[in-house]
Amino acid sequence: MTATSSDNMVTEAQANDLPLLRAIKTPADLKKLSIDELPQLAQEIRNAICHQVSKTGGHLAPNLGVVELTIAMHYVFDFASDRLLFDVGHQCYPHKLLTGRLDLMSKLRTSEGMSGFPEPAESPYDLFSVGHAGTAISTAVGMARGDSLNGEEHRKVVSFIGDSSIVNGIAMEGLNNAGTLKRQFLTILNDNGMSIATPQGAMASYFDRVRVNHMYGDLKKRAHEVLQRIPGGSTLEEAYHRLGEMAKAAVSHDHMFEQFGLVCLGPIDGHDLPTLIEMLTEVKDIDRPVLLHVKTIKGKGFTFTEGDATTFHSPKPFTVEGCRVEVKSSGRSFTSAYADAMIDMMKDDEKITAVTAAMPDGTGLTKVMAEFPDRTFDTGICESHAMDMCAGMAKTGQKPYFAVYSTFAQRAMDQIFQEVSLQGLAVRVCMDRAGYVGGDGAVHHGFMDISMFRVFPNAAILAPMDEPTLRAGLAFMRDYNAGASFIRYPRDNVSANPFETQLTPFELGKAHRVRQAKDGKPSVAILGLGTMVYIANDAINELEQQGYSVELYDARFATPIDIDLVQSLIEQNIKIITVEDHTLIGGFGSAVIEAAADRNLDTRLISRIGMPQKWVRPDSRNKQLADNHMDAKAIARRVREVLDDSTESITSKSQQEAQA
Amino acid sequence: MTATSSDNMVTEAQANDLPLLRAIKTPADLKKLSIDELPQLAQEIRNAICHQVSKTGGHLAPNLGVVELTIAMHYVFDFASDRLLFDVGHQCYPHKLLTGRLDLMSKLRTSEGMSGFPEPAESPYDLFSVGHAGTAISTAVGMARGDSLNGEEHRKVVSFIGDSSIVNGIAMEGLNNAGTLKRQFLTILNDNGMSIATPQGAMASYFDRVRVNHMYGDLKKRAHEVLQRIPGGSTLEEAYHRLGEMAKAAVSHDHMFEQFGLVCLGPIDGHDLPTLIEMLTEVKDIDRPVLLHVKTIKGKGFTFTEGDATTFHSPKPFTVEGCRVEVKSSGRSFTSAYADAMIDMMKDDEKITAVTAAMPDGTGLTKVMAEFPDRTFDTGICESHAMDMCAGMAKTGQKPYFAVYSTFAQRAMDQIFQEVSLQGLAVRVCMDRAGYVGGDGAVHHGFMDISMFRVFPNAAILAPMDEPTLRAGLAFMRDYNAGASFIRYPRDNVSANPFETQLTPFELGKAHRVRQAKDGKPSVAILGLGTMVYIANDAINELEQQGYSVELYDARFATPIDIDLVQSLIEQNIKIITVEDHTLIGGFGSAVIEAAADRNLDTRLISRIGMPQKWVRPDSRNKQLADNHMDAKAIARRVREVLDDSTESITSKSQQEAQA
Repeated sequence: MTATSSDNMVTEAQANDLPLLRAIKTPADLKKLSIDELPQLAQEIRNAICHQVSKTGGHLAPNLGVVELTIAMHYVFDFASDRLLFDVGHQCYPHKLLTGRLDLMSKLRTSEGMSGFPEPAESPYDLFSVGHAGTAISTAVGMARGDSLNGEEHRKVVSFIGDSSIVNGIAMEGLNNAGTLKRQFLTILNDNGMSIATPQGAMASYFDRVRVNHMYGDLKKRAHEVLQRIPGGSTLEEAYHRLGEMAKAAVSHDHMFEQFGLVCLGPIDGHDLPTLIEMLTEVKDIDRPVLLHVKTIKGKGFTFTEGDATTFHSPKPFTVEGCRVEVKSSGRSFTSAYADAMIDMMKDDEKITAVTAAMPDGTGLTKVMAEFPDRTFDTGICESHAMDMCAGMAKTGQKPYFAVYSTFAQRAMDQIFQEVSLQGLAVRVCMDRAGYVGGDGAVHHGFMDISMFRVFPNAAILAPMDEPTLRAGLAFMRDYNAGASFIRYPRDNVSANPFETQLTPFELGKAHRVRQAKDGKPSVAILGLGTMVYIANDAINELEQQGYSVELYDARFATPIDIDLVQSLIEQNIKIITVEDHTLIGGFGSAVIEAAADRNLDTRLISRIGMPQKWVRPDSRNKQLADNHMDAKAIARRVREVLDDSTESITSKSQQEAQA
Repeated sequence: MTATSSDNMVTEAQANDLPLLRAIKTPADLKKLSIDELPQLAQEIRNAICHQVSKTGGHLAPNLGVVELTIAMHYVFDFASDRLLFDVGHQCYPHKLLTGRLDLMSKLRTSEGMSGFPEPAESPYDLFSVGHAGTAISTAVGMARGDSLNGEEHRKVVSFIGDSSIVNGIAMEGLNNAGTLKRQFLTILNDNGMSIATPQGAMASYFDRVRVNHMYGDLKKRAHEVLQRIPGGSTLEEAYHRLGEMAKAAVSHDHMFEQFGLVCLGPIDGHDLPTLIEMLTEVKDIDRPVLLHVKTIKGKGFTFTEGDATTFHSPKPFTVEGCRVEVKSSGRSFTSAYADAMIDMMKDDEKITAVTAAMPDGTGLTKVMAEFPDRTFDTGICESHAMDMCAGMAKTGQKPYFAVYSTFAQRAMDQIFQEVSLQGLAVRVCMDRAGYVGGDGAVHHGFMDISMFRVFPNAAILAPMDEPTLRAGLAFMRDYNAGASFIRYPRDNVSANPFETQLTPFELGKAHRVRQAKDGKPSVAILGLGTMVYIANDAINELEQQGYSVELYDARFATPIDIDLVQSLIEQNIKIITVEDHTLIGGFGSAVIEAAADRNLDTRLISRIGMPQKWVRPDSRNKQLADNHMDAKAIARRVREVLDDSTESITSKSQQEAQA
């Protein structure tokens, strides 16, 4: 019954041969199939997903692992009315294929195609646009309470969460609250024994142990035991009598989540379709909170994905030939540069530690961990805990560097406030994926780290423009002990430096001029933050051709800003354009304006380029920058507008044109 | 052995008769006492605390509950070298008295005296300045790891946490990670069966049940059982053989936190000093993570505090006469006004729900809950979960209002981002304690809500200046469906309105003029946010006496701001001063400058008054405002400076003076 895994890549012919899947426009069509036909449907779904991801990249192994479970959920429930809430959501591809989105698949992770995460704009079957972990149980509790208040308790509520997400703080808060519900509420624990990388923490080892115990096969054999102890209080006792025979046999009498007040069932085999369907049918109407523990294999269906689910968690485009799998590589990323910089620093300074919250691959720490296993810590998906652990380590004199995506750093906002900044502790926060992130879309853009973190006294927020400045910035942070420091860099490759200036060490709040104006005094100075310096440089190449005179600074700091430089430029009547890969609301440019206003300078000479205040859908990072007027063309256009708006500057430009 | 509770108020004589306590300058002095003398010391500590709090207000019941436990910890450990981490920290008074701070007690919660929370600036015995819940275990894990890396594993690590805090997400994340430590690590669970109010969630009912089971008295009687099942894996088995006799007898074989990999002991009686000391001595050197479950009585020692620990959690000054306890009241608070406004709205609109995270008293929801028990939800100390529950309820068409302190709203930052704002859901966040909070100090000031939340598309951030505008603002939010809305008001009383203007309904992004300039065209317009309007009004009363002509606006919105008004004022050459009870970094004034800059207006006409970027210690709210140049005097001074700096305006002022 269980699908066997295949050694081979999906062929174009296989990927197009989807007779059952093509016939499913809504889950109602799925219900017309017999249970015997479902394994073939599962295979078609796997073929469609694997083929697409091999061409465009995307989340692979998480989706392959939940194919049968997703089919079973839609086979039993009616999510046109019932509520299905995905946690994290990168495992939603099978769900999308079963809800009429096969046609959008070919443009996966672009603005015209299918988002890689649940997206209400695509389908009423997607309730929440998610991407961050741990939220589904809590939103499900809210929907359950809301539906009950609305007199619509007939709508079943199902949340779907992985074993690594369920140990996130908010998920545990949600379970604790779910345990107080007096109505139907099903949580499906998709336990694949994997986080995005290896799961961490004591609970993970609990899941390991529980895995080898009572699988469903054993359960069938064991007699129905008398409930001698009722850890969930009366809940379990009440519910027990309503369970079907199979569910009764699957009751787990010492499951850790029983203490949260849930009836816990399983674990059962997440690739056995008849069992899944029978079990879901039996628990569907239980009017108490139930947790169904399901064991799945991440990457199920192909030898190469099962064998290396971490590499195939969210691969770039790849090919498979025989035993040889090749993931297409494309240059040196900031992530790789960061890893090498950390290793070099840790060799020199034994007090440096490196911390990640379940993102050792995404942040580069896998490589660091191999070199310094005792000084690298993976907390699992627990950003709040990780930040406080760093605070504690800093208190003992260690120098912790927390590598985290910008969008996930906000999950530790309160910890950065209280346990780090208020204490004046030197925790170093290294934010990968700052700015537009490309295909992951709105749930992952790192757009507000500066606005949030610059409120704190003594906070230093750095942005490197390339690998040498990344290293210089990290070195600065090592010696910065006045408070928290932050460094932000994009999901992008490092550029080769075309500038003639020498790399100078970072100095708090000091910008660095990387390009002088061609003809003496410039009309405009661009203050670029991070890699925007390179994009601005491309703009200047174009502008110089057109006779404009522009100089370029690497701002280096989003806070404190180089106000002496700003004042000097304004006093020389040189216009300033700030360019940042961050929201314009409270960001780097705003910090420049604030500081200028505090010195009573004329801010009409300053204009700001950055992210508009809107949600930006998945696409390539370059397209996102272009669409939002942050590419070289747009910067050049803005420079021309700024100069053409101003009488003085028009004169200056005309002079330049005359000279040209 | 257990102290008996007293019916009476502490007399002045009792409060001064502290022979044992006065002799204790450091915990080393405590260790010179015999165990028999400790109950007297406990009574002296209770008298000192109760007397002081009755005079000045402060946290009472939480401190009375932990007197014996704190004595025992200091008696057994040496926190000059060992690490003691308080969670929340409002239960630290006995600790402060045992570490040489009796003299600071008389100026409790002022900048010259003793902070009501742990404060490293006061003593090396206070490691972290805390006030927010759930953090101690995680910082303790960090200190444990740091000490181990530093080769200082001889430093014992003890975290001290209440039963309501331990179910907060970060605490559970911390426990899960603590379970992986291979060294000494003691967590003391102070279980008083109380949150700040009634504890919530399934775990709370677990604690209820476990309470009635094996108290230490029963344990003594029971034979040492063989460890038949080892839920913590090998950890418990290994550790068991190292435990002393008493600790062995106290091992809890089915404690919920065993699954986190901890050896769980107890519950034991938290007021029985010999048992506490013996137990701590036995577990002190265990080189594995241990959780010691201790049962205490919140408010222990006085009949009135034991009987109503919620009222005496953090009372204002009070008197007790016989059975009659009187807590001094002082006018109508925003909190009370909010409660009444919610009740009236909920009567009119059955879709409105009210949510709190363990602060029903602090936010006023206790009164709402009495009226609408089915539409009011207390999640316990789980701000992240509460926010997501609101998101889920909003998704079903309900209209949730989440009442939360400003400083705690940031604990749901990521949820406001993803589950609320990104979805465009109309969750209404009602932020009490916005701005300076007075005696709670830096851990509780609501200083950055605007900076954080105004980044989101369609966010509306409101600030009422008094009770009628609070009601009008809440009514606006009811009908605002474009996204999240926020309203912020201080820990202060509502003022009576001296203005002659009529109350008009709130209109998105529109300010409201409350006071015209005395003599035609004003020189300055003050845009006040929230209650700062009243303070600015006092300033104008003074300024008019001096011949200045100033008009006053109630800004109403921190975002979107009334840019048409700003433009109109600047075009008339009227100077603008923004006044806010919020940080100047990215706050309301910054939003005004940003918007003005976007319209290419001259921001030199705008100046900003608000919180400086620094941590502000406990004191009265009025003193904090004055010290930070945000009182009426400072506003008046700023107006004069602004006008005297400017030639035009000096002229205008001179004209006024001539006219006057």
